[in-house]
Amino acid sequence: MKKIGKQTILFDNPPTILECASIVGPKEAEGPLCKYFDQTLEDEFWGEKSWEKAESKIIKETVNLVISKSGISNQEIDICFAGDLLNQCISSNFGLRDTNVPFFGVFGACSTFVESMSLSAICSESFANYSLCATSSHFCSAEKQFRFPLELGNQRPQSAQWTVTGSGSAIISKTGQGPYITAITPGKIVDMGIKDANNMGAAMAPAFADTLVTHFLDTGRTPNYYDAIISGDLGYVGKDIVIDIMASQGYNIKSNYNDCGILIFDKNKQDTHSGGSGCGCAATVFSGYLYKQLQEKKIKRLLLIATGALMNSTSSHQGESIPGIAHAISIEI
Amino acid sequence: MKKIGKQTILFDNPPTILECASIVGPKEAEGPLCKYFDQTLEDEFWGEKSWEKAESKIIKETVNLVISKSGISNQEIDICFAGDLLNQCISSNFGLRDTNVPFFGVFGACSTFVESMSLSAICSESFANYSLCATSSHFCSAEKQFRFPLELGNQRPQSAQWTVTGSGSAIISKTGQGPYITAITPGKIVDMGIKDANNMGAAMAPAFADTLVTHFLDTGRTPNYYDAIISGDLGYVGKDIVIDIMASQGYNIKSNYNDCGILIFDKNKQDTHSGGSGCGCAATVFSGYLYKQLQEKKIKRLLLIATGALMNSTSSHQGESIPGIAHAISIEI
Repeated sequence: MKKIGKQTILFDNPPTILECASIVGPKEAEGPLCKYFDQTLEDEFWGEKSWEKAESKIIKETVNLVISKSGISNQEIDICFAGDLLNQCISSNFGLRDTNVPFFGVFGACSTFVESMSLSAICSESFANYSLCATSSHFCSAEKQFRFPLELGNQRPQSAQWTVTGSGSAIISKTGQGPYITAITPGKIVDMGIKDANNMGAAMAPAFADTLVTHFLDTGRTPNYYDAIISGDLGYVGKDIVIDIMASQGYNIKSNYNDCGILIFDKNKQDTHSGGSGCGCAATVFSGYLYKQLQEKKIKRLLLIATGALMNSTSSHQGESIPGIAHAISIEI
Repeated sequence: MKKIGKQTILFDNPPTILECASIVGPKEAEGPLCKYFDQTLEDEFWGEKSWEKAESKIIKETVNLVISKSGISNQEIDICFAGDLLNQCISSNFGLRDTNVPFFGVFGACSTFVESMSLSAICSESFANYSLCATSSHFCSAEKQFRFPLELGNQRPQSAQWTVTGSGSAIISKTGQGPYITAITPGKIVDMGIKDANNMGAAMAPAFADTLVTHFLDTGRTPNYYDAIISGDLGYVGKDIVIDIMASQGYNIKSNYNDCGILIFDKNKQDTHSGGSGCGCAATVFSGYLYKQLQEKKIKRLLLIATGALMNSTSSHQGESIPGIAHAISIEI
């Protein structure tokens, strides 16, 4: 692999995304992408005593599923990257403690899935035959931790996003028939001073635009190189901002740009306001829907840019703004 | 680079640890390693209004320092790996938001520094000229988040460790005169059912032994290959357990094994009970003390194995055990 331009890495022998798996919660099962997920849950507990334990079970079973679907064994996996939104990434730590696979924990908030795919791709070209990546999020555990007790029934502002309950996982292989990871553009932290923790889309949009423009400049590509440019997860508010920022930079992305948080829920029938979010959103939309679009050649060139809001509840209470980040991964068949 | 055995990666062109920097708090400044740190603070706030903001400032200034000492510019850094103990790794996110460097957040609890060095080394051999790694911890922010308000003056059990206030940072270069990162052994999550959050040493010791034995089996090396085998941070309780476990596996590590948490504080004069801990412990002991021992050839072959306890306060309240992890990095001159 080699670095080109300011931030982009091109793969000489692009790794293959060998297999994906996804498990989602009941609300996601009522959304427009339902048929693409491997498994849908009837409730948010899945037989566990807490939402945190349920989230661990979701990522655990998603990882078990992707390994089983891929036909390889745990022993063949050379490295694993995983993370989630819970403090100290406990869903991943507890969910993956029985996998018996070398493990690197990663945290990039909602950008974590693309971060883990990026690092898996780097490892696959350099030493690993198979890398595993996985992330999860859970509406109830996230609301409890970041916002208010669900029992309060707090009203959410229209700019708020709905944390996806679900997990996505992928196995990246050194060799294979694609879809191939052909390039990555790891993002820089961008903080434009947004302080509203109920408007993550606005906080993350500048980071998305920074990474996307950098990707275009580094590679010499333009928006129409890609069949689809997908963010994860800016929601409706962030999507509008991003289209405007990109236009101001001379890029028209209106025709082929969409967002995982918009794709996963039905705007009219499901009351999620600005759309979905969470580590599990980009992970499930990619592992469920987008990966199948690539396999069926409905999308031949995908740029997936996952975005993260790098704050916690303490930083917001202390009056801090919300730093954003966005990592891009180019996937082609 | 190539994988050998079960988990170890050998570098064909071992990257150089070009420069290190460390900043520590007032208690660490009273410890036996004081003279090795670049900067020591007079209090835990460093002019900031909260411990969290102070921790962000510590990692920020440590990173600024290592960049300044190295003589390279921010623009030359191809990738950065950083993480810390605070929820959602806010010290790193806020501390590094102005660096303008491609950023991957990592979380491995107290193992994070070696995780970030390992990933930096992988990137350095594959595409990066310069990688940056940094971690931090802060006694007050960690106690507040994981245990009790400091104002309570709670008594700590003898098995408890004292979170180091400090940050360590390193720049890894594709080329150079060493010290060289010659091999890494990423660890697996090991959970032996320890539930006492005041005895992290016991919780992490099995993961340390698992990685160390695997490293020996993968490389064919024995304990006496290394001048020093250093864990970070098992403390006194964990050190004793580890020596016993290794002896039961046929390895005598008594003569050349020590622990960052033991090295950083004076057992008799400083009331830290089982020794130091925290992302900043291994980071400062390596960046301050061990790196200089390598430069001065007092240590020629170092195996640094940082250990992490992958829990949070919610998981302990829900009766969960504490999964441990340990990542090894072999550094030679």
